[in-house]
Amino acid sequence: MAQAKLIDGKAFAADLRAKIAEDVAELKAKHGVTPGLAVVLVGEDPASQVYVRNKGEQTEAAGMYSETHRLPADTSQDELLAVVAKLNADPKIHGVLVQFPVPPHISQMDVVAALSPDKDVDGLTVTNAGRLASGLPALTPCTPLGCMMLLKDTLGDLSGKNAVVIGRSNLMGKPMAQMLLAADCTVTIAHSRSKDLPGIVRQADIVVAAVGRAEMVKADWVKPGATVIDVGITRYPARDPAAAAAGKTRLVGDVAFDEVKEVAGAITPVPGGVGPMTIACLLANTLTAAKRLSGIA
Amino acid sequence: MAQAKLIDGKAFAADLRAKIAEDVAELKAKHGVTPGLAVVLVGEDPASQVYVRNKGEQTEAAGMYSETHRLPADTSQDELLAVVAKLNADPKIHGVLVQFPVPPHISQMDVVAALSPDKDVDGLTVTNAGRLASGLPALTPCTPLGCMMLLKDTLGDLSGKNAVVIGRSNLMGKPMAQMLLAADCTVTIAHSRSKDLPGIVRQADIVVAAVGRAEMVKADWVKPGATVIDVGITRYPARDPAAAAAGKTRLVGDVAFDEVKEVAGAITPVPGGVGPMTIACLLANTLTAAKRLSGIA
Repeated sequence: MAQAKLIDGKAFAADLRAKIAEDVAELKAKHGVTPGLAVVLVGEDPASQVYVRNKGEQTEAAGMYSETHRLPADTSQDELLAVVAKLNADPKIHGVLVQFPVPPHISQMDVVAALSPDKDVDGLTVTNAGRLASGLPALTPCTPLGCMMLLKDTLGDLSGKNAVVIGRSNLMGKPMAQMLLAADCTVTIAHSRSKDLPGIVRQADIVVAAVGRAEMVKADWVKPGATVIDVGITRYPARDPAAAAAGKTRLVGDVAFDEVKEVAGAITPVPGGVGPMTIACLLANTLTAAKRLSGIA
Repeated sequence: MAQAKLIDGKAFAADLRAKIAEDVAELKAKHGVTPGLAVVLVGEDPASQVYVRNKGEQTEAAGMYSETHRLPADTSQDELLAVVAKLNADPKIHGVLVQFPVPPHISQMDVVAALSPDKDVDGLTVTNAGRLASGLPALTPCTPLGCMMLLKDTLGDLSGKNAVVIGRSNLMGKPMAQMLLAADCTVTIAHSRSKDLPGIVRQADIVVAAVGRAEMVKADWVKPGATVIDVGITRYPARDPAAAAAGKTRLVGDVAFDEVKEVAGAITPVPGGVGPMTIACLLANTLTAAKRLSGIA
């Protein structure tokens, strides 16, 4: 059997960012609207610092307005909510993103509840979850949105396909299932309590693995020719002992890539598959929010 | 093989109403709170008249306060929204239900959007759909709530069971899937675009049929011993020609009951299965809303 087609999320994300940059330029020229994204970071978490810097750089590269608010780790919840309220009301800003995790003295749920649903470009609020579940225009979480784009690009029409989503988080598995259902897939949501997970996955034309268990999905779980989207990311020490000793790491997905690529019809690698789509979809959501807030279809 | 156990929704609903009446009495005695349900009916639809009368009678029978607002068919949308706003603000009222369908000059979506989510005892609002999807306390649509109660009563723990929901409406299929997922089922949502529906249904330990296609689910679709919940209702002329000529009708479910009961482990009849649960769950939701609005756990 031929090897699976590699789904190149990095290239797709680069094309998407270029398309967004064109749309942003047109939005500025025709309507005088510059989409603006504000990112709020509380504390000094090193990984978060990297994410926030990347987001800011890519936002500006797309021609959008970017603002980063770095607050000290001892910021009170009330102070953070006041920053969110100010950004909710700021007409320059169309997307507000609070980088999680926040320090433990702050309630993540209270922060999400304070976000304006119309600027909730991470798709975290109850209102956007409800809009998605009700088939109304929503801002949806970025990672499942990126997975949908890759699936449609790979397969075209998804109607009638059997899709199995492994994992049921509010940010990934559940919205992924809603999006696949909206695309007319027959959707199964499986999870840690599911019985005979290999047998369930074997029915799938589309597998989305989002549990965070390294290399869980094996070749004999996958129907020949299926499309496999790997959302999981686990960080391991590098294979080379010297590199590992130097603190180098490698990323491993939820799919046993080397064996599954011999069976699947198409597959996302880790890294370079779903990962690069997330920030690109954040920019897409910011553009969408800017258009809706400005009353432009 | 033994015949399926009949799931007696009528008896279960009667017990549930009795239990609710006890809770209402306790709520009055201990906290001085009488749950109040307001039903709004626009126009003269005969079926709606019957539903609204039944709801009012059962609300009072449970010891709750009941209000029915009968508005003429030419009521404007603004007038209806003003009634809803008044009920949203009325401290005697804990549940507001606008009987659908409303006349075509009124937007059902606008009416739903005007409901206070905390009094939305039909679980129609985007906020309640989002709360359900996010695993937060929600007021959920009554019919899937009733199905869940019957399933738990029949099967006990649902964890790890394969559940197939046929139908993906916002009011039934989608919230049903969310509730089954919250109960740790592996959940598949199938629908009109699904391929090999019989093969999908045959995997299920639990089948919930909610499409409104009379007797669609056949015996050879059902795994021996499965639990079958039939939500569909189609009205046909009575079998007896004289009765049919006199306008008598009979109700038929989505499941070919006579043959499926020979295969299933348990099954709801139509009528007398899911149907009687709906108003009982409306009362349950009104009680829940009254407790939450009054700050009682």
